[in-house]
Amino acid sequence: MKAVGIIVEYNPFHNGHLYHLEETKKKTSADCVIAVMSGNFLQRGEPALVSKWARTNMALSAGVDLVVELPYVFAVQSAEMFASGAVALLDALHCAEICFGSESGEIDPFIEAVHTLQKRQQEYDMHIQQALKTGISYPQAITRAWKQLQIADIDLTKPNNILGFSYVKAIKEQNSSIIPRTVQRIASGYHDETFSHPFIASATSLRKTLSGSIEQLEHISPYIPSYTKHALEQYYSTYGTFHEWEHYFPLLKYRIMTMEENELQRMANVDEGLEYRFKQAIVEAETFSQFIHSIKTKRYTWTRLQRTCAHILTNFTKEQMAATKKPAYIRLLGMSENGRRYLQIVKKKLSLPLITNAARLHSDYIYEQEKKAVAAYTAIFPEPIRTNATKEEYATPPIYWRACK
Amino acid sequence: MKAVGIIVEYNPFHNGHLYHLEETKKKTSADCVIAVMSGNFLQRGEPALVSKWARTNMALSAGVDLVVELPYVFAVQSAEMFASGAVALLDALHCAEICFGSESGEIDPFIEAVHTLQKRQQEYDMHIQQALKTGISYPQAITRAWKQLQIADIDLTKPNNILGFSYVKAIKEQNSSIIPRTVQRIASGYHDETFSHPFIASATSLRKTLSGSIEQLEHISPYIPSYTKHALEQYYSTYGTFHEWEHYFPLLKYRIMTMEENELQRMANVDEGLEYRFKQAIVEAETFSQFIHSIKTKRYTWTRLQRTCAHILTNFTKEQMAATKKPAYIRLLGMSENGRRYLQIVKKKLSLPLITNAARLHSDYIYEQEKKAVAAYTAIFPEPIRTNATKEEYATPPIYWRACK
Repeated sequence: MKAVGIIVEYNPFHNGHLYHLEETKKKTSADCVIAVMSGNFLQRGEPALVSKWARTNMALSAGVDLVVELPYVFAVQSAEMFASGAVALLDALHCAEICFGSESGEIDPFIEAVHTLQKRQQEYDMHIQQALKTGISYPQAITRAWKQLQIADIDLTKPNNILGFSYVKAIKEQNSSIIPRTVQRIASGYHDETFSHPFIASATSLRKTLSGSIEQLEHISPYIPSYTKHALEQYYSTYGTFHEWEHYFPLLKYRIMTMEENELQRMANVDEGLEYRFKQAIVEAETFSQFIHSIKTKRYTWTRLQRTCAHILTNFTKEQMAATKKPAYIRLLGMSENGRRYLQIVKKKLSLPLITNAARLHSDYIYEQEKKAVAAYTAIFPEPIRTNATKEEYATPPIYWRACK
Repeated sequence: MKAVGIIVEYNPFHNGHLYHLEETKKKTSADCVIAVMSGNFLQRGEPALVSKWARTNMALSAGVDLVVELPYVFAVQSAEMFASGAVALLDALHCAEICFGSESGEIDPFIEAVHTLQKRQQEYDMHIQQALKTGISYPQAITRAWKQLQIADIDLTKPNNILGFSYVKAIKEQNSSIIPRTVQRIASGYHDETFSHPFIASATSLRKTLSGSIEQLEHISPYIPSYTKHALEQYYSTYGTFHEWEHYFPLLKYRIMTMEENELQRMANVDEGLEYRFKQAIVEAETFSQFIHSIKTKRYTWTRLQRTCAHILTNFTKEQMAATKKPAYIRLLGMSENGRRYLQIVKKKLSLPLITNAARLHSDYIYEQEKKAVAAYTAIFPEPIRTNATKEEYATPPIYWRACK
């Protein structure tokens, strides 16, 4: 059996994701699709709209065969670390190919860019250092260095292109035999916040429309499959909320206000005196949005600050971030019958332990951070939902999806 | 002018407190009564029912002339440290006497006990060590050592007697010229939870009856002066709540669940593997009461565990506790006209700076903990009440109470 890997957040799963999934199957003729999916917190530093279990259900409904968790320590990171963790998991699962969405749908510019960069690393680093000195953000510095090298024909101001580039780079760096592929994204751009297409909209615009409540669900239904709608309805009726940063702001504020500056400084991403800005701004901030607006600068992008806040909320330290090298386990969240067959074939040759029972992970340092993320994620629920939701994390076996025929 | 010092929590101010205040005035013929009062968290590790400002108003209404704050680092401590901080503040304010409530109303047994203890310190310490080895709590060990020494005629199982003894001991240890006095407590015992007297009831029973809401206020009105009732009503209508541990449990749970064991171990009072018990019990606990019940042992009393939880909630570390030696400032919360006159007389000879504007304290390490306590205390309010209440802490000048004539 041939497996293709995809790297996803499904926050929530929508028609654009379905298109990517279908195109991936066509393009690669794989027998099995493996999705590496972020858990409670996502790459841009946001809490996931609904739990990993609800999103795993969406993925399996859509035809994904295996869903494995990208641990927090890789998931809530810049593109490079994010890609490195995801690629390592897919490599450990013996994926033959990876297929990501890009603006152009052409893989060659990505491969060429990675090759060139490796040859001209020093020059590239120098350009980045120079760019950073002008006070711009790290992503902007990368884009600028990129232009100055005039390497390849990829628009690296597009987040999806940066991720694609990072996947190809990680494959190369890890000497993986995975073949990178890309399919062209359909319609709507990553950050689009308007509905300009009849059935395709970005996850960002969908979340924004929902804005934490079920009331606008009808408005987004043209853009999501029926099983996503059903999963969202079910989640809301059980947990009473969709998760968004504003719900966590009371906890974040409590945390920052009871930390001293030197403690704040030990948190991941809190650099260059950010601790003072945080401590000062938090006193007056009544909402998360107000808080981020008041500390945002040219240097610190919204995403970067949001990620820093996720680290503070989940107590993720610089020390732990520095210790993050590569995945230590493959945590299975869900599988189809087909995915199960695939696992039976590759099971003996997996290079990382396959975990179906999280209780066995309790002493793992990567999972330690996962537990903290779960604790923070469920902290907004009233009791007894909170206690139950926390225990679900440890007790839920992988979802086994049997198609009705 | 002659000043007498009293050490209070007024949580809330009730008829028993008024009796103590009146008896103190009669007994000492002082011209000025100075109360040292705990702030947001109290000696038994509980959040104060209402803010320090509301309780200062009660004290001034009752006829106290000066209210100064006992900082968190002394207030949420065992009797010895609590007394040491309070006595040092009253000494700095040039009180001639201290007058506390006791079961017998006789001062000699207290003085005799302190004298004897100083002479037989080694023997006493040995008895305590032996008692602790049997697995009982520290307060119980003290009581047992006490009995074995057969020193004096004080029942040290009574919390108020332990406090009284600690005041006399602190006066002696600090070589203070303060004369200790005591008045007999009226009716109801400290821990009484029933209403067995027509107009006297313990603060504990009053809080229990209120249990966080205004609805039972009428039921407690026989036991409190009208100004207490008024202050409680006003507080509730402004802030929408009376404070109690259960309201803070969601925050405490979030905090403990996102801390690793070694971090928990750095918190004040977390000794002897308590961190493991805490981490284990917190997962299943849905209420504060459940949580404490599940970790309580013969060794760890409810009070001790509650105090430990206050330290975790406010992020008070072992290191900070060890650094706590003596007060660094006198923070004025309120004064009467008479109190103001007294301050004008003693102002120049105060041995500690008198602080009327908390903003001036921002770099003080004792006040650093006060800020954390305020942040935790106000964290249960919705916005914008939370932000306003936090700012009040820094912006509120001492309450100046002018009696209408």
